Amino acid sequence: MRIAYQGVTGAYSEAAALRFNESTDLMSCRSFEDVFAAVDGRQATHGILPIENTIGGTIHRNYDLLLEHDLPIVAEVNLAVVHHLIVNEGTALDQIKRVYSHPQGLAQCERFLRQLKGVEIVATYDTAGSAKMIKDEALTDSAAIASERAAHNFRLQILQSGIQDYADNLTRFLLVAKEATPLGPPDKTTIVFTVSNEAGALFKALSVFALRDIDLTKLESRPIPDRPFEYLFYVDVSANREDLRCARALMHLAEFAPSLKTLGSYPSWKGDGAGSAATLA
Amino acid sequence: MRIAYQGVTGAYSEAAALRFNESTDLMSCRSFEDVFAAVDGRQATHGILPIENTIGGTIHRNYDLLLEHDLPIVAEVNLAVVHHLIVNEGTALDQIKRVYSHPQGLAQCERFLRQLKGVEIVATYDTAGSAKMIKDEALTDSAAIASERAAHNFRLQILQSGIQDYADNLTRFLLVAKEATPLGPPDKTTIVFTVSNEAGALFKALSVFALRDIDLTKLESRPIPDRPFEYLFYVDVSANREDLRCARALMHLAEFAPSLKTLGSYPSWKGDGAGSAATLA
Repeated sequence: MRIAYQGVTGAYSEAAALRFNESTDLMSCRSFEDVFAAVDGRQATHGILPIENTIGGTIHRNYDLLLEHDLPIVAEVNLAVVHHLIVNEGTALDQIKRVYSHPQGLAQCERFLRQLKGVEIVATYDTAGSAKMIKDEALTDSAAIASERAAHNFRLQILQSGIQDYADNLTRFLLVAKEATPLGPPDKTTIVFTVSNEAGALFKALSVFALRDIDLTKLESRPIPDRPFEYLFYVDVSANREDLRCARALMHLAEFAPSLKTLGSYPSWKGDGAGSAATLA
Repeated sequence: MRIAYQGVTGAYSEAAALRFNESTDLMSCRSFEDVFAAVDGRQATHGILPIENTIGGTIHRNYDLLLEHDLPIVAEVNLAVVHHLIVNEGTALDQIKRVYSHPQGLAQCERFLRQLKGVEIVATYDTAGSAKMIKDEALTDSAAIASERAAHNFRLQILQSGIQDYADNLTRFLLVAKEATPLGPPDKTTIVFTVSNEAGALFKALSVFALRDIDLTKLESRPIPDRPFEYLFYVDVSANREDLRCARALMHLAEFAPSLKTLGSYPSWKGDGAGSAATLA
């Protein structure tokens, strides 16, 4: 098993990958597209991708990439995202002139950053990469916003802990692979479908699950750019696609949904983290 | 009418406010919280807030603020967000050493920015504020990512147009007020509710609308942090809350939803922009 992830060592995606297996082989990639390319080209067996965050919501870009590629989801994992202000040993808060991090990391610590007067905020391509730069360039007037693991890996000091604006900052990650071999008995299925512009069409779509007593754990509409009368639906179903009830529900949905794609059946995350055991309906 | 918005002149929120009335009085605010405070304290009659974007998805922070405050939604407006690379007259692309913008602006132009070699990317509190700074400090080695209006207002030059990664970058804004006086005949209602953790609970919730032939234009589940067995639902309904059918549907929903809040009934946006005339079900 070799998991491709976006970022450098100490990235939150790396921490998510290690929750499956602490000694797994990892492959650092520059972008989400590169993660898909690494799995497509078999440089990695798996790829890990953030898909939703309690503060930022759904990461539509990764849904788009899942639709473009044929890499089934084989597992999911939840991770609490805790940001720290990280510096070289000896740097004090009042010496900091610049703070580096990924735009999402900066946005999630906005209130904290607003308190720092006369500090310049610099966006980078990843959180852990910012910590690495602080170390490599031995910057004594700068800080990075990144994970505890990044501080540890690059032997940096955590000046302030848990600086994100909201305590409950959880990210859900999906593990994709070239072959549809789930990492355990599947009990969750992720699908994307469109509904036609008819009264009651969405209700009809959901009824294929409700009438078979199948629960949903995520439901989200997304307007389709350039097609103002159509919507994409993201749905997570609490069942294996191969269970007879679920298979029949998906066939039923395919009878009238203009498009339907199953992105994978996989074991739901049983560890800690909000949403892991939740049920919508 | 005086509309409070987040940012400085040239901000996308300002452009959205001006779509209601080109000569409306405007009030610049530093944060979304300040927009709510301005309307609460009657320094402004209305406040404008981005609520969802085709690339970035729902802006959960503003839903949270709508739930915390009692400022009803009285209108909505869609705006195509087009980002430009803006410089002082005479600055060429190869002279640019730094690019300034809001983290969301930077994230929406990530592919473009990756092509620029040896350029530092600096996050700021707003897109238009970055353009203002380029002008105020007469920077000749820097650029801002902001709107055409920001370039025009600060007499700057657009070096490259439409640099966002995706052409269809639309943002939907909500207009809130102290009193529930919609800006026209209401035909859309925004509600937030929770469902209990019972099989079929969401289906039952949606049935109160479907069985009365009321369409939905947005539907999104959001896990509630710290309460892993509960979900918030964001729903937009194609009806005025005072229409008998809609009023009955909402009363029906209140019979079994543990919590339900109507954030406002208002006229749906009839102008251009995807999603304006769309219907989910």
